[in-house]
Amino acid sequence: MKYDVIGIGNAIVDVLAPAEDSFIEAEGLTKGSMTLVDAEQATALYGKMGPAREISGGSVANSCAGVASFGGKAAYIGRVCDDQLGNVFVHDLRATGVDFPSKRGAPSGPSTAHCLILVTPDAQRTMSTYLGACVELGPEDVDPSLFSEAKITYLEGYLWDPPRAKQAMQKAADAAQAAGGKVALSLSDAFCVQRHRESFNELIEKSVDLLFANEEEILALTQCSSFDEAASAIQGRAKTVVITRGAKGCVVIEKETITPVAAAKVQQVVDTTGAGDLFAAGFLYGYSQEMSVEECARLGALAASEVISHFGARPEKALQSLL
Amino acid sequence: MKYDVIGIGNAIVDVLAPAEDSFIEAEGLTKGSMTLVDAEQATALYGKMGPAREISGGSVANSCAGVASFGGKAAYIGRVCDDQLGNVFVHDLRATGVDFPSKRGAPSGPSTAHCLILVTPDAQRTMSTYLGACVELGPEDVDPSLFSEAKITYLEGYLWDPPRAKQAMQKAADAAQAAGGKVALSLSDAFCVQRHRESFNELIEKSVDLLFANEEEILALTQCSSFDEAASAIQGRAKTVVITRGAKGCVVIEKETITPVAAAKVQQVVDTTGAGDLFAAGFLYGYSQEMSVEECARLGALAASEVISHFGARPEKALQSLL
Repeated sequence: MKYDVIGIGNAIVDVLAPAEDSFIEAEGLTKGSMTLVDAEQATALYGKMGPAREISGGSVANSCAGVASFGGKAAYIGRVCDDQLGNVFVHDLRATGVDFPSKRGAPSGPSTAHCLILVTPDAQRTMSTYLGACVELGPEDVDPSLFSEAKITYLEGYLWDPPRAKQAMQKAADAAQAAGGKVALSLSDAFCVQRHRESFNELIEKSVDLLFANEEEILALTQCSSFDEAASAIQGRAKTVVITRGAKGCVVIEKETITPVAAAKVQQVVDTTGAGDLFAAGFLYGYSQEMSVEECARLGALAASEVISHFGARPEKALQSLL
Repeated sequence: MKYDVIGIGNAIVDVLAPAEDSFIEAEGLTKGSMTLVDAEQATALYGKMGPAREISGGSVANSCAGVASFGGKAAYIGRVCDDQLGNVFVHDLRATGVDFPSKRGAPSGPSTAHCLILVTPDAQRTMSTYLGACVELGPEDVDPSLFSEAKITYLEGYLWDPPRAKQAMQKAADAAQAAGGKVALSLSDAFCVQRHRESFNELIEKSVDLLFANEEEILALTQCSSFDEAASAIQGRAKTVVITRGAKGCVVIEKETITPVAAAKVQQVVDTTGAGDLFAAGFLYGYSQEMSVEECARLGALAASEVISHFGARPEKALQSLL
């Protein structure tokens, strides 16, 4: 196999700025969540935000960068525009060692997506995403031969939002399955799950081997009111289900077993952006190397602990050096 | 007066990435210095650099952001293009509270300038600047009425490089002097001084009240071989000369006195980008409030110590809160 992991997701540049809780409230944003905004809303919010820094992001793109940082071979499919932020996104991904075979949208089309991320003093992030060029992603961006060359195909839940991306996801999953590869899915966000619950459930039944979710997302998916109920409800519906619980670590649910794994220690949590993405990176890398699920979860915890110790959703240190 | 400080300089977005010393060497760059590159060279170097983050920069723009962060009133004149990085530059400056009255270059013209900054493990920065839209700055960008409304007009030495910017600088200095304002100049970089020594000397004689330089720059300007010789040579040529000496602090040279002031303590030096710019910010803010030169230098040291404790050349904390 040419790749350990090939990911498909919304290609986004993050625009990160510190903000007070009062600002999140005044803007009517839901702390800790991701909201989709149009170009006008994005411009209005940006105009009120403090000085920011631009760092490449995108949930599954962050995970692919993490896999490469562990020494894995990764590729990423996503749509950016042929503009300055598109250059930034493509450069940063390739510079981490991730293949980026996607073609880019014309400069006259929607601009590269960006996500306005407000980081509050408690290190939580609140995200407002303008999808821009991501809406152009469609099945024509999925070359099945590429996806048949990967041990794991990793799908981003957020891709359920742009209209034609769902077809691209299903095509990628089908190609992976036909070639005997594993299919992994991240639920991305509780509101995203609420928007698309039924089709997520269908995809999981039909195609998903490895499911990543946090507590709110798994409650939203299963419509249960407690974690234990939700864990029972999801058990066996994908071969492996990994539920992250922040500082409490994670739980790996397989057909016969439920395995809790502790989080890694962090000196100072600066910005939780990318915690879930980098957890997935570590887990996916371990999974591609056929490690035990406990070992996979430990790599995930390690990667997450690195990324929350600084601003931005991609590792600053080579994750391989932390092993 | 409407403004404490009005600055004029090259409007630049920084592209910062960690790099090993071996990379600086292999690329034939001079560590710690600023080199001008054309679009092709910039693209080639960017292609080889690691994943980066984009943070607004520009030497005097950083200083203006610092003045505002101390609670001073500041404005900035510089040229960006009407493109995405131009939006980033203008947003970040305005969001710090700095007025930005300059018009922007057409999207069909050269793009917003960017500076590729390689930060080595010793926290030193090595800069390669593509001037882009900065070459469009000219005397027509200087509205004399604006410069007559500032206690201090702050000129960037780097502006000697784009061909017509020198005329803009002289026009700004003349307007400030005619209105009884002070004129400050940063020498910016030792190689920049070597490129323009004669005209720097003319400007200092004719117009400069307050001169900022580091040790290498003052040696380059005076063509002396020791710091003490250079200090004697420059004494009295501007009313106040401030020479920064890194961890050794700074020396303030006035007609009758030479006053050394210690640096502020820093827990961990992460990235020295912006150290000189933020030192100038603190000094200029104090100067505009008619503090003693020792007090001005102490504010400078405080601002410099904040900016070298993180990536990027602008303060992350409100400098006012450090007073």
